[in-house]
Amino acid sequence: MNLVIRKAEKNDMISVLLLIKELAEFEREPLAVELTQNDLIRDGFSNSLFVCFVAVLNDTIVGMSLGYPRYSTWKGATMHLEDLIVTQKFRSKGIGNTLFSNFIKYSHSKGVKRVEWSVLNWNVNAIKFYESNGAVVSDEWKIVQMDEESINNFILNT
Amino acid sequence: MNLVIRKAEKNDMISVLLLIKELAEFEREPLAVELTQNDLIRDGFSNSLFVCFVAVLNDTIVGMSLGYPRYSTWKGATMHLEDLIVTQKFRSKGIGNTLFSNFIKYSHSKGVKRVEWSVLNWNVNAIKFYESNGAVVSDEWKIVQMDEESINNFILNT
Repeated sequence: MNLVIRKAEKNDMISVLLLIKELAEFEREPLAVELTQNDLIRDGFSNSLFVCFVAVLNDTIVGMSLGYPRYSTWKGATMHLEDLIVTQKFRSKGIGNTLFSNFIKYSHSKGVKRVEWSVLNWNVNAIKFYESNGAVVSDEWKIVQMDEESINNFILNT
Repeated sequence: MNLVIRKAEKNDMISVLLLIKELAEFEREPLAVELTQNDLIRDGFSNSLFVCFVAVLNDTIVGMSLGYPRYSTWKGATMHLEDLIVTQKFRSKGIGNTLFSNFIKYSHSKGVKRVEWSVLNWNVNAIKFYESNGAVVSDEWKIVQMDEESINNFILNT
């Protein structure tokens, strides 16, 4: 298996978008992806809003990781792993493991005090994998989100 | 009540750090704050890792909000509200409300598609406040964290 993990380039964003859409289907939100290939190119390369790595197997992109810096007022600089995706056909071959390891090593090289991400509570395989690597899944902290519509309503009403 | 919300300056970081420590005590983690005033000045002003606003009441800092950009591979650019703190003595006067409103307006002005943050599941007053403003608290997504020790162990073992 000739697997290479490398930083993504602009040309890879079409494959990255397909992986994002595949994950959204798995997460039962097939229509949630509003981004286009051009959005990803602008946001990842002109605006540097994220870093992306791709897993290339025999010249084909079969997986990716995508993350960005965050900040903890307790610990300082941290990294967030937004997505870790391996396409269905190539799962259970250790590619996700290699992508994860690459992202943790990248974060470590940046000197961050924490790496964090989110997981769906029913994704037990992912949770087992994360815990086996020393990560802790919080029962106490909840994620709160205000979407675009709520933001607009809030602005109108205040 | 002469309340002003303004962007924090370097000189404000000593007051901001005191507020961070006060919140950590409330959240039952009094020893969790490892940051110093100088860390905050470097990270917020030289490295631009976060944006911070302070609530100034009659020339005294009584509250703050602190956040940073994040990225959703579904929606694009988002903002994260890391902390919203009002010192104990000045709670229940609408200052938190004003800081929250200011942060949402700031995020809206940046054109983000989502504002998000975390809340402790037992902090029912905060949850009520957020929900009354159109935010949604997720039961399905869990926060996963790998701390510095686990990162170092992971690096050593892979």
